[in-house]
Amino acid sequence: MKKEVIIVLYGSTGDLTFRKLLPAIIDSYKKEHINNNLLLVALGRRDFTTDAYLEFVKSHNEKLDIELLKNITEYYKMQITDKNDYVGLKELLDQNSSDKTRVIHYLAVSPELMIDVSNIISEQKIIEKNNLNQSVIFEKPFGSSYRTAHKINEELWKNFSEKQIYRIDHYLGKKMVDSILKLRFENDILKSVFSPKNLSSIEIVVKEKDGILNRGSFYDSTGAVKDMFQSHILQIVTLLTMKKPGKFDHETIINEKVKVLKQLKYQKETLVFGQYKGYLKETNVNENSLTETLLAVELFVNNKFKKVPIKVLTGKKLDAKETYIKMNLKDGSSLLLTVNPDSSLLLSTKILGENINNRYVFENIEDEYGKLILSAIAFEKEKFLRWDEIENSWRFVDELLTRKKELTIYSPNFREKE
Amino acid sequence: MKKEVIIVLYGSTGDLTFRKLLPAIIDSYKKEHINNNLLLVALGRRDFTTDAYLEFVKSHNEKLDIELLKNITEYYKMQITDKNDYVGLKELLDQNSSDKTRVIHYLAVSPELMIDVSNIISEQKIIEKNNLNQSVIFEKPFGSSYRTAHKINEELWKNFSEKQIYRIDHYLGKKMVDSILKLRFENDILKSVFSPKNLSSIEIVVKEKDGILNRGSFYDSTGAVKDMFQSHILQIVTLLTMKKPGKFDHETIINEKVKVLKQLKYQKETLVFGQYKGYLKETNVNENSLTETLLAVELFVNNKFKKVPIKVLTGKKLDAKETYIKMNLKDGSSLLLTVNPDSSLLLSTKILGENINNRYVFENIEDEYGKLILSAIAFEKEKFLRWDEIENSWRFVDELLTRKKELTIYSPNFREKE
Repeated sequence: MKKEVIIVLYGSTGDLTFRKLLPAIIDSYKKEHINNNLLLVALGRRDFTTDAYLEFVKSHNEKLDIELLKNITEYYKMQITDKNDYVGLKELLDQNSSDKTRVIHYLAVSPELMIDVSNIISEQKIIEKNNLNQSVIFEKPFGSSYRTAHKINEELWKNFSEKQIYRIDHYLGKKMVDSILKLRFENDILKSVFSPKNLSSIEIVVKEKDGILNRGSFYDSTGAVKDMFQSHILQIVTLLTMKKPGKFDHETIINEKVKVLKQLKYQKETLVFGQYKGYLKETNVNENSLTETLLAVELFVNNKFKKVPIKVLTGKKLDAKETYIKMNLKDGSSLLLTVNPDSSLLLSTKILGENINNRYVFENIEDEYGKLILSAIAFEKEKFLRWDEIENSWRFVDELLTRKKELTIYSPNFREKE
Repeated sequence: MKKEVIIVLYGSTGDLTFRKLLPAIIDSYKKEHINNNLLLVALGRRDFTTDAYLEFVKSHNEKLDIELLKNITEYYKMQITDKNDYVGLKELLDQNSSDKTRVIHYLAVSPELMIDVSNIISEQKIIEKNNLNQSVIFEKPFGSSYRTAHKINEELWKNFSEKQIYRIDHYLGKKMVDSILKLRFENDILKSVFSPKNLSSIEIVVKEKDGILNRGSFYDSTGAVKDMFQSHILQIVTLLTMKKPGKFDHETIINEKVKVLKQLKYQKETLVFGQYKGYLKETNVNENSLTETLLAVELFVNNKFKKVPIKVLTGKKLDAKETYIKMNLKDGSSLLLTVNPDSSLLLSTKILGENINNRYVFENIEDEYGKLILSAIAFEKEKFLRWDEIENSWRFVDELLTRKKELTIYSPNFREKE
């Protein structure tokens, strides 16, 4: 029988698959959010049967419902850099698909493989250019500078139309982030909180208590700016300060986001690049590394929000693990949107002389990957990054990084001044 | 020693004095809100010493701190309609006051006596016209129609300047009502809730569970419209829909309130005058009485709020005892401001797909009379009614009452349709 939906998972024995993608797919399946006429093709080089693969999966994440996966999964052994191995994959897909099948290729592979895999699946006609039912999802990082991101896009466009490309920033699947536009433009009570007329400042804070753990070789070539700021934080900035889109379709929304990225400025005097004490002794870190583990900066968007400083802080080995957006209003009121560790909202204001702090914790369990996979299946492109969002954010970040002339060394559990 | 503040209480053996005025004065004194160099002159026709008066007071309200009152009270026996009796009162006041003494004459007397007492205290030079340190507070009702209210004002102006006259509507001392302008214009979060752009409707509800109790002779000549609507409810309407005043001084604020009263319309088809079943059998009620005990109507203010219907309901013998203002927003959110039985605020909205109901109960105990007496001492005239507010509200009410052609008879515990 032909399938309604096929998800092809490149990197099916990787950490992201165990921790995020399979739980998301299982959950969506159970809740009947995903079409149940679904095939999940797991690709890997290991010599597994499907059952052996699923046992392996189970050994990495005990909570997974393997019985459910047995009904929808097919493991396919291949070397994903070897084009000959794709012949059989194509056959498998052809057998299971019709013209109407929604096929999602999820490339949960390392960035270096992105172009190679893209080229092969195109060459082998596994994906036809401009067949919008066939899409490719890419995991970040998407390049490491304007130049590299631009080059990757040019390469991809040889094989796929932009409409087939889904670039993931998983923050766009997070409940609080995903809802910013609704809160700003649709909620009659909260919309004044987001108005530049009322705002005195915005804070965007992504703090981690951990250091870099065992990810030294990745992190030392990346740093806080490229890891957190270029993607997640700039996405939040654009959602908070973009003009109200004339239409709420993805092209219009993203056009407005790109405008913000072009209008973005930073206050030089506020720039702090920090590195936590002890970083140089972490495994796989260059002993003279100048990689920053902390960034603090005040941004400005040169539109209606130009008088509203956006205070950004992100870093590792800080006093708390938390991600939040805080809207500070001129009258002393504030709205705190917590993204991590929970999805919550805290409205603080003074009414009738009394301080009111109303906190509301959203119940729904965060499942950003499930939401994003479902969005991709449903062609909801506004939850994904368009090429020019990525290129313009890199342009800004490249310039910012030229300012990194000294590093502030800070002690673990550092707490920024109030 | 000369006093800083003198309060002269006409009607010191009345119910309002026991239940409201003395508790308010005691409370203000204890909290040091009122100048402690205070003299309270209690006027009555009964043959009391001050101590005997205070014992009498105690017998009517056991909770009162009589020991405290002993330090500040002087009972003065007089017939308040006999001008000869005022000679001694003037002497008493002269002994205790200087040019700087703030003297408040609180006329807690029946409306029929208002003009007589005013004439006498003026004639006896107890109050000099245009001496702003000498003020007169009048309790409502202030007239019973445009014509009578206008006539009372004309009479009063013979003796006092408008600046010396403080007309009480005790709702203006209630925490939630007193704060409407602050919420509308100063709170960055709530101001959007009060904006006509966001509002779909406003509800103003003053429901009582009781009937008219033992007040038949008063109520049967008054009715719901004159008792509740003309004063309290129309005050709430003006505060909710007046234009933002250019300056927050009392003249400007009241100018804007008067504009609203002139812009006020009602929807004829929505008018309901009701009378509860059994009303005609209440003591001191005319057996053929056409007095209404319920009013329901939709108002419109012909300014920026013209598209926002204001749904008013007030009545006795209804399903609950409650007074509230509810702002219903177009997106389905609402703000409920409860005036009675507590001072509370309930914000209801849908955020991120979840229904949020945040209720906040204000802690401060309601003491509207204390607040109003202190406001009068401090010359805060915006908490009192100006002549033209009263005359214009009567003008509207007079017209409304010409529409009373039939009465809807309703059962006790009636609950209006949702």
